[in-house]
Amino acid sequence: MEDRPKTPTLDRVNGSADLKGLSNADLHRLADELRAETISAVSQTGGHLGAGLGVVELTVALHAVFDTPRDRLVWDVSHQCYPHKILTGRRDRIRTIRQEGGLSGFAKRSESPYDPFGAGHSSTSISAALGFAVARDLGGSPDPSLGDSIAVIGDGAMSAGMAYEAMNNAGHLGKRLFVILNDNEMSIAPPVGAMSSYLSRLYAGAPFQELKAAAKGAVGFLPPPFREGAKRAKELLKGIAVGGTLFEELGFSYIGPIDGHDLDQLLPVLRTVRARADGPVLIHAITKKGKGYEPAEKAADRGHGVSKFNVVTGEQKKAASNAPSYTKVFAQSLVQHAAEDERICAVTAAMPDGTGLNLFAERYPSRCFDVGIAEQHGVTFSAGLAAGGMKPFCAIYSTFLQRGYDQIVHDVAIQRLPVRFAIDRAGLVGADGATHAGAFDIAFLSNLPGFTVMAAADEAELKHMVATAAAHDDGPIAFRFPRGEGTGVDMPERGEVLEIGKGRMIRRGSGVAILNFGARMKEVLEACEALGQRGITPTIADARFAKPLDEDLILSLAEDHDALITIEEGAVGGFGSHVAQLLAERGVFDRGLKYRSMVLPDGFIDHANPYDMYASAQLNATDIEDKILNILDIQSINQRA
Amino acid sequence: MEDRPKTPTLDRVNGSADLKGLSNADLHRLADELRAETISAVSQTGGHLGAGLGVVELTVALHAVFDTPRDRLVWDVSHQCYPHKILTGRRDRIRTIRQEGGLSGFAKRSESPYDPFGAGHSSTSISAALGFAVARDLGGSPDPSLGDSIAVIGDGAMSAGMAYEAMNNAGHLGKRLFVILNDNEMSIAPPVGAMSSYLSRLYAGAPFQELKAAAKGAVGFLPPPFREGAKRAKELLKGIAVGGTLFEELGFSYIGPIDGHDLDQLLPVLRTVRARADGPVLIHAITKKGKGYEPAEKAADRGHGVSKFNVVTGEQKKAASNAPSYTKVFAQSLVQHAAEDERICAVTAAMPDGTGLNLFAERYPSRCFDVGIAEQHGVTFSAGLAAGGMKPFCAIYSTFLQRGYDQIVHDVAIQRLPVRFAIDRAGLVGADGATHAGAFDIAFLSNLPGFTVMAAADEAELKHMVATAAAHDDGPIAFRFPRGEGTGVDMPERGEVLEIGKGRMIRRGSGVAILNFGARMKEVLEACEALGQRGITPTIADARFAKPLDEDLILSLAEDHDALITIEEGAVGGFGSHVAQLLAERGVFDRGLKYRSMVLPDGFIDHANPYDMYASAQLNATDIEDKILNILDIQSINQRA
Repeated sequence: MEDRPKTPTLDRVNGSADLKGLSNADLHRLADELRAETISAVSQTGGHLGAGLGVVELTVALHAVFDTPRDRLVWDVSHQCYPHKILTGRRDRIRTIRQEGGLSGFAKRSESPYDPFGAGHSSTSISAALGFAVARDLGGSPDPSLGDSIAVIGDGAMSAGMAYEAMNNAGHLGKRLFVILNDNEMSIAPPVGAMSSYLSRLYAGAPFQELKAAAKGAVGFLPPPFREGAKRAKELLKGIAVGGTLFEELGFSYIGPIDGHDLDQLLPVLRTVRARADGPVLIHAITKKGKGYEPAEKAADRGHGVSKFNVVTGEQKKAASNAPSYTKVFAQSLVQHAAEDERICAVTAAMPDGTGLNLFAERYPSRCFDVGIAEQHGVTFSAGLAAGGMKPFCAIYSTFLQRGYDQIVHDVAIQRLPVRFAIDRAGLVGADGATHAGAFDIAFLSNLPGFTVMAAADEAELKHMVATAAAHDDGPIAFRFPRGEGTGVDMPERGEVLEIGKGRMIRRGSGVAILNFGARMKEVLEACEALGQRGITPTIADARFAKPLDEDLILSLAEDHDALITIEEGAVGGFGSHVAQLLAERGVFDRGLKYRSMVLPDGFIDHANPYDMYASAQLNATDIEDKILNILDIQSINQRA
Repeated sequence: MEDRPKTPTLDRVNGSADLKGLSNADLHRLADELRAETISAVSQTGGHLGAGLGVVELTVALHAVFDTPRDRLVWDVSHQCYPHKILTGRRDRIRTIRQEGGLSGFAKRSESPYDPFGAGHSSTSISAALGFAVARDLGGSPDPSLGDSIAVIGDGAMSAGMAYEAMNNAGHLGKRLFVILNDNEMSIAPPVGAMSSYLSRLYAGAPFQELKAAAKGAVGFLPPPFREGAKRAKELLKGIAVGGTLFEELGFSYIGPIDGHDLDQLLPVLRTVRARADGPVLIHAITKKGKGYEPAEKAADRGHGVSKFNVVTGEQKKAASNAPSYTKVFAQSLVQHAAEDERICAVTAAMPDGTGLNLFAERYPSRCFDVGIAEQHGVTFSAGLAAGGMKPFCAIYSTFLQRGYDQIVHDVAIQRLPVRFAIDRAGLVGADGATHAGAFDIAFLSNLPGFTVMAAADEAELKHMVATAAAHDDGPIAFRFPRGEGTGVDMPERGEVLEIGKGRMIRRGSGVAILNFGARMKEVLEACEALGQRGITPTIADARFAKPLDEDLILSLAEDHDALITIEEGAVGGFGSHVAQLLAERGVFDRGLKYRSMVLPDGFIDHANPYDMYASAQLNATDIEDKILNILDIQSINQRA
């Protein structure tokens, strides 16, 4: 406890009501203490740091001015909500964040009434806030009753079409609604796109010092009688003329830019708009990611996601790694192929670092495209590249690929265009929890005609799959691989092109056959090792492909064994379901087969470390062992927690 | 043949090369003949009429100015491409359009090199065209080599976030790219949203007559030396000042608005931009849907989709209907519930007529929301409404729901919010073909934890399911139903609230059990009728729910029969896969069960009438009969074509 900061003002706050009595001077102190507490907490837990530090003053100002939780405050993405959680009754648990059984690293409805709408993915906040605003005006009346609607959204999130759709609709409906554009010129990577340039021009043309006066009386959208004097109104109008036009054309009143770290700007602006707005208002606040903590401010990613760290030095405690990460294996393999084939290009949706494509971009900048947080466009842009004769690798995490599903069906699959999908973060991902799980891609891709769907059993397999995708020109192909480091297998110098639709036999045994699809292979091998000590020697095969299925392999496994178990890191409807469909159609079930399909369970799994998440999903080695013993009618000797 | 128009100029055109030698006067004649031919053709086939008539001059101008197919012309949605097909070598087959074996009603890569990118869904064209532009600059080199990239997109399609994402990326990349904004103030319904108002202001402020001169020299985006005199440049700048700002802020040069039916504006503008552009250019053309054919111009939907009609009178030959359409049953049921529960509201994504919600909007305008072509926002907006205590019915066709998949997972399912999804056009849809098939929703919804997924066996069942959804507050619920009319069953006065997760027994038989999910029920009954004549009396049950499964019903059917067949109007991974997973986990396959799952086949099915599409999918009554005979080892006596 000795390393915790002194926080006398913060100690008196346990909800937004406690801010109401505070003077502006107290609120300044509160912000400083909140920043110190946030740094202290994250230093002990790791997690998202920079985003929270960037909104400390904004968080204080919003809770001071608005009547939360009656007023619905919706944080976009919501990885910036640690200070919000500290202020709203969760300070006592803030040092459990992202740990099993602890607070979520995101806003979460089940956690607090102060979190009226959860998130994890970006660009949903304006839609949700508009829903609240409309529900309010229609008399929707849960407890507490509905007050104002406020969305806080970053400039990076504004590159997503969904945010535009919501603005377009909100501008049309004209409901009272507040959108705070938290503009820090950074999402995870520096943002890209014309909107980003536009925002830069807005504040390039209007430095803070000149706008301060205007901001304090930021009421340009009000009818003249309410304006605080002609002079200020004029200054404000000058500010608006600089460039809020784009938002105004979409039906919003635009105020800004204002300094998002200056409570003397934030408080009067928010108080004024709260008192007077009668339609949608966009408040453009400039902030700095990592603000007030030098190691974060100086980091390339502004302290976006950090491990536990030393508060004084900022040094992070990184765990030693035993094997290269899957991400790195993918990226290095792709760079290798790109050196030999100049038609290979790469597309990322605002995740150059996360997908490893920063490595590709360094070597081949003209062939690497960061489209922004824009998965719909990213997929169809890739389809256009493929139709234009390129070999695009579209690298999108499993969970975010859900954003481009129609484009995968309509633009890629129906047209049979050879887009290569590199699907990182497949399966359960750990501390980011349910919103980031890659649970559904096997199912939603494997039923698309003409698709080829692979999953890597280890990092060497991944290398082969990159080679296979690079060579595959007959329709779309996808390969999935998990978050984290590989298993430490020997790595081949070059990936080899796999035969499409052919699995591999790992070990011939008898009685039971396990047909693995993806990265549970390590657990399968461990389970079989344990079973071997009891004289049970299952056959182990690696399917490699969920589509097309290796029908010969599957039917011969079914023929030669009493039992067949499939396992995959995905929900029902995927690999196992396709195997079951084959077995049914071929009449294999007619004569009896002990068939089981181990899949993710029917429930969203909360954040924990991946091993524990898979334990709760019953997909670890002991679970596989149990499954086999059970199918053989042998009592398990494993004691499970 | 006698009713065909005289078309001497058109008769000389079989591709864009044939337009190159034509004088402007010839091009005027060509446009007139092309319009007449389009009307004549659609009068014989039915199909999309108004959209094509609105782009006759634009189509002529584009092919006259650009070097198609080397220049890639991408039509958004592409239901406006009938004139384009007539001009590009497909005139001889234009009277087969949307018929089995005939031309597609949309652009289609496999049909012609003049269709470099197909569509059906909206708002994909800018992404695809940008892909071509980038591929060109990277040296992608298919045959023919890549020239210019042109996207033609409607104002309605501009409400989709995907179009914004693409503009944002295109503005950033700065590649030479042409976007023609075909602004007819109509998508299928009148467009909504702030963008639409913005476009209206653009041309309200700049009437054609004043702009004609400016348009003829529309070169404002060029460096001064190229401008054709100061006067014209000034006029043009005035036009731009009216409002192209929004597009210019996104990095595009804006030209317009120009009269999209005036070749004397279109040709010089296109020739100028083609000669001089070195970045992305947006040309804003005002057109009139249904232009030049009075019955279409006068229709509320401007002749969007028509049956065969009499060219002189415009009278359409509508088939007599025997039963109410599913769409109407849904809409009327919803109106009935809304009368009793003011928390019920409805959301459509630009399809008020198609979904039947126009009926709802007439009665309850304040509770009906057309969000525009914006499925992502529509879903999360619904989630916000639900979180705000409303009971939103989000009515989106199966195929378009793919656009909101991540929002369904992330905002609805994970938060367990009671959004009601009314999924029309489930299964195969007929003349719109593969792009509009509702094939995947059962799979992509049924594996989401906490979801309830229903399908209606007939229109009375649909009425019960609307009642069930209205009453269901425990998490999200979806019900799917097909395009077209019901089966003519007796309709209950009121829908009854079904017990969640409980199916119903239709008829107890023996030997074989058929477990139906959805609207194949009619075919199942017909098959069993035929089988009865041979002394075979299958048990028939209706699952009603794909999730949660009626485990008792399924296990008892498996117990009491030698064979169990599931059937659904969806791809593998859905209902049948969940049944198989249950049977596997409960060890039912261990002892042998003749289990089969009848699903849509692994291939995209081209347009035809729905009956024939289901025949090719092998899901009609005779196919069910065959399946049962086959499973019983009885030779089929049915002769199949």
